[in-house]
Amino acid sequence: MTSALTPHERVAQSLARQGMMNHLGVRLLSASVGQVELALPYTDKVTQQQGGFHGGAMGALADIAGGYAALTVAPEGMEVTTVEYKINFLNAFQGGELRAIGRVVKAGRRVIVTTAEVLHLHDGQRKDCAVMQQTLTPVNKTY
Amino acid sequence: MTSALTPHERVAQSLARQGMMNHLGVRLLSASVGQVELALPYTDKVTQQQGGFHGGAMGALADIAGGYAALTVAPEGMEVTTVEYKINFLNAFQGGELRAIGRVVKAGRRVIVTTAEVLHLHDGQRKDCAVMQQTLTPVNKTY
Amino acid sequence: MTSALTPHERVAQSLARQGMMNHLGVRLLSASVGQVELALPYTDKVTQQQGGFHGGAMGALADIAGGYAALTVAPEGMEVTTVEYKINFLNAFQGGELRAIGRVVKAGRRVIVTTAEVLHLHDGQRKDCAVMQQTLTPVNKTY
Amino acid sequence: MTSALTPHERVAQSLARQGMMNHLGVRLLSASVGQVELALPYTDKVTQQQGGFHGGAMGALADIAGGYAALTVAPEGMEVTTVEYKINFLNAFQGGELRAIGRVVKAGRRVIVTTAEVLHLHDGQRKDCAVMQQTLTPVNKTY
Repeated sequence: MTSALTPHERVAQSLARQGMMNHLGVRLLSASVGQVELALPYTDKVTQQQGGFHGGAMGALADIAGGYAALTVAPEGMEVTTVEYKINFLNAFQGGELRAIGRVVKAGRRVIVTTAEVLHLHDGQRKDCAVMQQTLTPVNKTY
Repeated sequence: MTSALTPHERVAQSLARQGMMNHLGVRLLSASVGQVELALPYTDKVTQQQGGFHGGAMGALADIAGGYAALTVAPEGMEVTTVEYKINFLNAFQGGELRAIGRVVKAGRRVIVTTAEVLHLHDGQRKDCAVMQQTLTPVNKTY
Repeated sequence: MTSALTPHERVAQSLARQGMMNHLGVRLLSASVGQVELALPYTDKVTQQQGGFHGGAMGALADIAGGYAALTVAPEGMEVTTVEYKINFLNAFQGGELRAIGRVVKAGRRVIVTTAEVLHLHDGQRKDCAVMQQTLTPVNKTY
Repeated sequence: MTSALTPHERVAQSLARQGMMNHLGVRLLSASVGQVELALPYTDKVTQQQGGFHGGAMGALADIAGGYAALTVAPEGMEVTTVEYKINFLNAFQGGELRAIGRVVKAGRRVIVTTAEVLHLHDGQRKDCAVMQQTLTPVNKTY
């Protein structure tokens, strides 16, 4: 990774390599230093037993939103790995799409802390789905 | 849901309705009162940028392992919804399959607490992947 | 508890009953619907092995800041109990005092979700100490 | 810190420096590689508004039980700092004493993961109070 990469390029390059996220149809909406927004459309690949978005889909989206926010502040040539996260589910929805916005709270040398909020957009409405708090650590890039 | 259902039937019935889990190929291995084990095979539907199992896949599997353990202790005719969970990732692996074992720690009337461990099985080896701690609440079954 | 109580009175009434918080010298700075701010002075009752504020003190302060924010939105005549919380420690400090600001994220009938931030104030400086995410549930008041 | 120190000496040496824990009356019961047990007696220094053990006291005790378990596996001459923890409260009790048992789940070079369980002992009964999952990191010892 060279200094020529913008935060958006840096995140897009990693996202393109994530089989799971490509499979689910996750899109990168924006990435700046310390903040990233992603979208996940509603399909039958992301539903739970009642037809709503699966908690696993919300969790995965929040995880990478926070993780990519952390990537934008990681040293050049490094990437980040999730140490842990904690997510609260606020409401369940179906249809439309999910948005997840990750933000860096602390950009330490060894530990990066982020939060993410997950929203549901449908028919012009925007509602809270989940909130996450996450810990990551910078690691060497191996690809 | 009638009293004729065994824990295994109760979990299997719900899992069959989860679009996301069917899509990823999750299988129910065992279910007894207070404990459930699930498996998730390695495919390109569950990878991250380095080719290992995605944290989102480990999180989703742990979430439903704990959730289905909780379902086995929920009152008849009710199901459960995840209030929140927290997961630590211990190691990343590729190939083989993941196993998640969910266990009930407290079966309250309003709050059910579980833990789950995620393991990686490959070439006869069994290694730790993740540990999760989770809170759920019983809700009316709507289908 | 009658409707005549303001959020501030409601929180102050409960705080006065907390032996641990009185012992540590916690003060209520402000309480409005959905938000509460508390202060904890530096003394030798709250230190860890290096002389900084103990994580246990930061955790306890964050816990009650979130909990009292939840109390301001709980139904009249009820109080709240902490189901769980998760806290990230960002920096350690000594001297001065801690401030914790709790905010309600979701005020559900069965589940209340809050966040809290813990700050350190000293010599006119204000620095981040910790962030917390918490789940509570309304319970009957028994005193 | 020299190699002559046993796990018990290593933990005892640190605990003796914690103003908060001495103040609350915390005692070290046992410490071996990867596991530590602590006790906290019931006094008016640790109560909440209903007279039970304060969540802040349970959280602080769990935090150091996990932290000291981590210390027993940290490299010589280093200590550990809590990155974050998550705790579920299972039951509230008064009288008697709390016990917290911390155990190492993963002893990494950069990240140590632990769990702790908090129990209540009173009149010969032993009951579950709380479960915790925690992340720590080794840091240089500065005293």
